[in-house]
Amino acid sequence: MSEARPQPLIGEPAARVLVAGASGFTGALAAQIVWRHPRLELVAVTSRGDAGERLDRLYPRYRVPLELTELDLDSLQDVDAAIVAYPHGAAAPTVAALRRLGALVVDLSADFRLRDLSTYERWYGDHGAPELLDGAVYGLTELYREPLRSAELVASPGCYPTASVLALAPLAERGLLADAVIDAKQGVSGAGRGGGDAMHYVTMDENAYAYKTEGHRHRPEIEQELAALGNGVEVTFVPHLMPLDQGELTSCYARLTEPLAKEEAQALYAERYAGEPFVHAVDAPPGLRDVRDTNECHVYVTVDDRGRVLSFAAIDNLWKGSSGQAVQSLNLMLGLDETEGLL
Amino acid sequence: MSEARPQPLIGEPAARVLVAGASGFTGALAAQIVWRHPRLELVAVTSRGDAGERLDRLYPRYRVPLELTELDLDSLQDVDAAIVAYPHGAAAPTVAALRRLGALVVDLSADFRLRDLSTYERWYGDHGAPELLDGAVYGLTELYREPLRSAELVASPGCYPTASVLALAPLAERGLLADAVIDAKQGVSGAGRGGGDAMHYVTMDENAYAYKTEGHRHRPEIEQELAALGNGVEVTFVPHLMPLDQGELTSCYARLTEPLAKEEAQALYAERYAGEPFVHAVDAPPGLRDVRDTNECHVYVTVDDRGRVLSFAAIDNLWKGSSGQAVQSLNLMLGLDETEGLL
Amino acid sequence: MSEARPQPLIGEPAARVLVAGASGFTGALAAQIVWRHPRLELVAVTSRGDAGERLDRLYPRYRVPLELTELDLDSLQDVDAAIVAYPHGAAAPTVAALRRLGALVVDLSADFRLRDLSTYERWYGDHGAPELLDGAVYGLTELYREPLRSAELVASPGCYPTASVLALAPLAERGLLADAVIDAKQGVSGAGRGGGDAMHYVTMDENAYAYKTEGHRHRPEIEQELAALGNGVEVTFVPHLMPLDQGELTSCYARLTEPLAKEEAQALYAERYAGEPFVHAVDAPPGLRDVRDTNECHVYVTVDDRGRVLSFAAIDNLWKGSSGQAVQSLNLMLGLDETEGLL
Amino acid sequence: MSEARPQPLIGEPAARVLVAGASGFTGALAAQIVWRHPRLELVAVTSRGDAGERLDRLYPRYRVPLELTELDLDSLQDVDAAIVAYPHGAAAPTVAALRRLGALVVDLSADFRLRDLSTYERWYGDHGAPELLDGAVYGLTELYREPLRSAELVASPGCYPTASVLALAPLAERGLLADAVIDAKQGVSGAGRGGGDAMHYVTMDENAYAYKTEGHRHRPEIEQELAALGNGVEVTFVPHLMPLDQGELTSCYARLTEPLAKEEAQALYAERYAGEPFVHAVDAPPGLRDVRDTNECHVYVTVDDRGRVLSFAAIDNLWKGSSGQAVQSLNLMLGLDETEGLL
Repeated sequence: MSEARPQPLIGEPAARVLVAGASGFTGALAAQIVWRHPRLELVAVTSRGDAGERLDRLYPRYRVPLELTELDLDSLQDVDAAIVAYPHGAAAPTVAALRRLGALVVDLSADFRLRDLSTYERWYGDHGAPELLDGAVYGLTELYREPLRSAELVASPGCYPTASVLALAPLAERGLLADAVIDAKQGVSGAGRGGGDAMHYVTMDENAYAYKTEGHRHRPEIEQELAALGNGVEVTFVPHLMPLDQGELTSCYARLTEPLAKEEAQALYAERYAGEPFVHAVDAPPGLRDVRDTNECHVYVTVDDRGRVLSFAAIDNLWKGSSGQAVQSLNLMLGLDETEGLL
Repeated sequence: MSEARPQPLIGEPAARVLVAGASGFTGALAAQIVWRHPRLELVAVTSRGDAGERLDRLYPRYRVPLELTELDLDSLQDVDAAIVAYPHGAAAPTVAALRRLGALVVDLSADFRLRDLSTYERWYGDHGAPELLDGAVYGLTELYREPLRSAELVASPGCYPTASVLALAPLAERGLLADAVIDAKQGVSGAGRGGGDAMHYVTMDENAYAYKTEGHRHRPEIEQELAALGNGVEVTFVPHLMPLDQGELTSCYARLTEPLAKEEAQALYAERYAGEPFVHAVDAPPGLRDVRDTNECHVYVTVDDRGRVLSFAAIDNLWKGSSGQAVQSLNLMLGLDETEGLL
Repeated sequence: MSEARPQPLIGEPAARVLVAGASGFTGALAAQIVWRHPRLELVAVTSRGDAGERLDRLYPRYRVPLELTELDLDSLQDVDAAIVAYPHGAAAPTVAALRRLGALVVDLSADFRLRDLSTYERWYGDHGAPELLDGAVYGLTELYREPLRSAELVASPGCYPTASVLALAPLAERGLLADAVIDAKQGVSGAGRGGGDAMHYVTMDENAYAYKTEGHRHRPEIEQELAALGNGVEVTFVPHLMPLDQGELTSCYARLTEPLAKEEAQALYAERYAGEPFVHAVDAPPGLRDVRDTNECHVYVTVDDRGRVLSFAAIDNLWKGSSGQAVQSLNLMLGLDETEGLL
Repeated sequence: MSEARPQPLIGEPAARVLVAGASGFTGALAAQIVWRHPRLELVAVTSRGDAGERLDRLYPRYRVPLELTELDLDSLQDVDAAIVAYPHGAAAPTVAALRRLGALVVDLSADFRLRDLSTYERWYGDHGAPELLDGAVYGLTELYREPLRSAELVASPGCYPTASVLALAPLAERGLLADAVIDAKQGVSGAGRGGGDAMHYVTMDENAYAYKTEGHRHRPEIEQELAALGNGVEVTFVPHLMPLDQGELTSCYARLTEPLAKEEAQALYAERYAGEPFVHAVDAPPGLRDVRDTNECHVYVTVDDRGRVLSFAAIDNLWKGSSGQAVQSLNLMLGLDETEGLL
């Protein structure tokens, strides 16, 4: 198959980019987005288990005609930026090494998302590079746009926190949340490769269920970000799997600290997201097909006649929930328009 | 195809049964269950739009070799019982006529579920037979087993109330609920036949969304039944569609009037449902595949570290959520074991 | 959950039945069918990898409340019949041991399907019990009904040969086939448990492909059976996977040795299958939903204006393609009506 | 939502493009491809039934922020080219009118595909603009690249002929085909919007079936194109529906006029498609996921040990099977690189 770029670079590339861990679902998509990006050059895609394989054999429709290699930090040169798609816990040492080489890093794992080390350790175990926690910027552009412009290490949010926080941020920014229940529903790609019979087609077809009902490690990340907006609140968060590939829908149910009419709530969301290129306040509950294969987040808010605020956010978990958002951050780090390569 | 019964009747049939509205999803399944039932005789299946068609052409895998006819109440005789699967509002007059003929009736519509006429009128419009409301018994066997034994008209619950009430009843019976959020997820069969492009395969495939977020007419039914258990409480209820055929999962999030440990909650549910033939307190969040094509309801309860009780109920919306449950009620009305024809 | 039988045994059980290999898709379904069978008693379900687990935890909706055990031939007693659901090659020794103990055996593997040992060895390797080949009866009831009544070892056909041979038998019985192309399409359950990322939900969702295009080991089985009907013919057979759970559709394209009009072909099929309880000549191309969870095979035949005969057969690969058919054979072996427990 | 173009035009647009019939599946995708095309300007999207609606409400993920209007040929100006996505039969008059206005036209309907008027009339009825038949160029780039460069009216092929002809062309070009059976399998998007209960999610979920088994109107188009390659041959063609959205797989079974070894066949295909940007001879049977949302066609050829050639082609029916291919033709008509906007 063709090894030509899908479109010519516009001028000199803004950065030479490495994607580490490109054989998983999120790494492969990150590689594709960089490969098609008009201002970035994809210089290497690495994998521990699939080195030697071409990426367009593993993921034909992404059409990235590069061979996966083992990551060799010693011989690495001329890499300006890296997207790291390693499992939680495994990412930190590689991120630290890449930072020592001077590369900008966007990390897709949880390793730098939780600002409190003890909280990280409770949910994930030992941390491989705690000294970098302070300098990491949380890669949710809609909340951290300015810090991201000067960031050197970005902790890209998990898909659940992305949709949850975007669904609740306009309320949290005004301190309106008294509590929040988040019922999250995700397609099977969110579970990643592997998984054995639990992820077998026959297991998931015509199926749906909740999991980690007693506490999911994405919850502290959600609570951290709501608190950072000035609205510390305890969250009940329950994820579910549904029989589809890409997509995530969070349904949020919140009590408020003061009454809000439906029209007020909708005006608040419309105003908050008016200038956002990827987050849209829509006028009906969003569907997952609306955002599939896009970096968009569609948010709908309403108030039921019990006075409870309901908000719904739909994203593609691999795009806005992971790899698309990572490039959105990288664009800002590089001084590019944040939408480059993502529209 | 064969017109033989799948299994011989055991003795004289306990009742000669009519299924009215047998060309819709729930009516067709009701017809199949009666057809295969060892103690019932299916004497007629009727349909307004599909009269003249054989039921096993519309639903081949149900293998009911009867021709659909127009319902002709004047010539109807020798019918001991009827299951009526008409749309809300359309059922009441037919139910009333069947009752006048002396038939026991299980009605699958909403027409006799709400005991308060004004609540019915608010959500559904005029009522066609309000004089029958008082005598109707709500067909949730696990709550109304004794009244069902002498019932002559049963209002069979909607699928959403079935799963929701079963998920919350052990708490409501002790007055423990302070509030309740119910996030319900259902397969597309719950929307019934028709629906046009909104139900097109291409619309629903790889899709999921909430609907009727400002108030669904099944909510008053849920609140009525919780109140009947002695725990009047305002409920927030939001239904969602998922890309699958049969199945419904309700995820319930409740604050309690007094603290309850996880183990206490699980013991409470285990005890409450210990003797139930179809409702099982399970030890992990249930999946929809677990109950597909069965009359079972699997319930899981837990308490998260925020003190919120979470309970999950999985049913097949066409079986325990509708037609299976209807036959469960009919069995009781006829003095049969409630599990006959349903295991 | 209840351990009661779904329905009472009618009189003394006709046989005490063991299902060996009950943790795979076909073995589990065989166990369910026997469990629900009004004349059989399911005395044990065995598994190598899942011993100690209850079958209704692995397959909740089958509701077989028995614990899987290791097969211990030494302590086995009072077993009249066995259904063996082992992988090809692994079955033969166990089948031989069970036969030595006097049990009737229906084997779901390929081990006794090919009457020619060298053909078996070419496709499957060494044979573990070649001495039993001669006495085995091929378990396609519609072709071998009489021999099955006195069979002691039945080689139950593969799902592909079942649908293929039923689609072509009326032509082959008259020697009309000049050649045959069989394009078979199957759901993912046909691939069995396991399979790793190749069977991951995300791999198969929205996917379809051909496999084993250069020769599938079910082809010699198909050719053997057509030859046994007196119409030896070379077959091109290509299987495909489709994104669904249960179901198999074979589309057959045949040149004839003499011309046949569409009406003649349809009359031939109608006549051939007129008395069959499970095989139906239908009047339009059959769909997989028509036969799901049933032991039926729907066959449609036509002739296109190129003079080519087209025939289509739809089955549920786990039922008529495997476990349902196995019980159909077992019924005959035991002198029961072949439809018992299968309607 | 943003009305900005996803990427800036490169220089002056090569053409101002109208998409007529943009509310159907193929028209909507054509509009998206033009909207994102770096050298084309999308000046209008029209629809008869959905005028007044914004296209990004009907198809949110395509993100085309234009309002659908009624097509008004009188006020139309400054349109250089049009893609017409009307039903068969309805397209011809509009195509003729657009041609009279001087616009280049790519027609997605069947109206100009069949060069023989009587064949058209047999399958489709009266023709609305037979005078244009002679000048129309068949828009299968891989066969008609040079004529397309000067075409003013392009008859864009149906999805079935696209995949079928690409799967067989290397053989037909050498006159090797003695006959051909084509078993085609398509996702539900191929059936278009509408369709009522036949296309209901519940009807198609877990289903698959053949249709138009006695002769599909795409067959004469396939035979015409094989004949045009010098290999007139009678084709048996049977389409099937599968439970997925986008994707089409044709499995072709051919007898040859002279023997060909597997290696020869594969070398022939590799050589034939070596320079093609979108058609790739792959080394294993292609899957539909490999090409989803791309303009690619993956072709695999082999020879089984019966001497029959088997070839398989996978495309996305909406892209290479329709709208992507239409833009590929339009690029050539406008003197652009044929891959512009399609990689």
